[in-house]
Amino acid sequence: MTIEQIIPKLVVEGAEAAIRYYGEAFGAALRDRHEADGRVVFAELEVPGGAVFQLKDADQLDRDPRRLGGRGLLLTVMDNDPDRLAERMAAAGGEIVIEVADRPYGVRQGRVRDPFGHEWIIGTPIE
Amino acid sequence: MTIEQIIPKLVVEGAEAAIRYYGEAFGAALRDRHEADGRVVFAELEVPGGAVFQLKDADQLDRDPRRLGGRGLLLTVMDNDPDRLAERMAAAGGEIVIEVADRPYGVRQGRVRDPFGHEWIIGTPIE
Repeated sequence: MTIEQIIPKLVVEGAEAAIRYYGEAFGAALRDRHEADGRVVFAELEVPGGAVFQLKDADQLDRDPRRLGGRGLLLTVMDNDPDRLAERMAAAGGEIVIEVADRPYGVRQGRVRDPFGHEWIIGTPIE
Repeated sequence: MTIEQIIPKLVVEGAEAAIRYYGEAFGAALRDRHEADGRVVFAELEVPGGAVFQLKDADQLDRDPRRLGGRGLLLTVMDNDPDRLAERMAAAGGEIVIEVADRPYGVRQGRVRDPFGHEWIIGTPIE
């Protein structure tokens, strides 16, 4: 038993729009995509730094955060310029939930909700 | 702007029990832990293969999947022995949602719901 990777898989309503959004916000490139009955059942995206995440259209098994009224799982993004990343995420259609600012625990950090209801904690270590 | 990492952060009700569960199920070791007002606001765990994830106790900002009635975000775990991993996750208190079996898309895969409501897709590529 060897766990090699743990990859987040976002449930979204509107996978095509989500792929565009994450392309604009993160510069994420689509690496793989499978469709069934007109819905995206699996898509894999890679950001320029090499991190990978996946997404799928909501279905009977999995509802998206907007439908649920929450998400139960956040994503922390380590980025060397969280101010710039928050701007890009907002410009592409996201909403800043918590402003990017220096935190007492040694991180410059904020939180952005993307148009699909997912929330991203973005930060970089500070001195 | 360089995204270095995307780290899943699970919202749970009962962070201490969750840390124990993920220790049993994945062999995850606690790397960092911060508390405020008796709640875990941040804990970081590392699995033997090196993958990292975080968790926090549910609070007013973030509800856990059991409270929400869903999760909106799944985690895909690549493991060389998903049958064994599913057994361990179930033995430690999880529930098998989808049996581990060979799938037409070239993966031996199943899905397990942990005691905190998070769902883990576990799989390994097959020929």
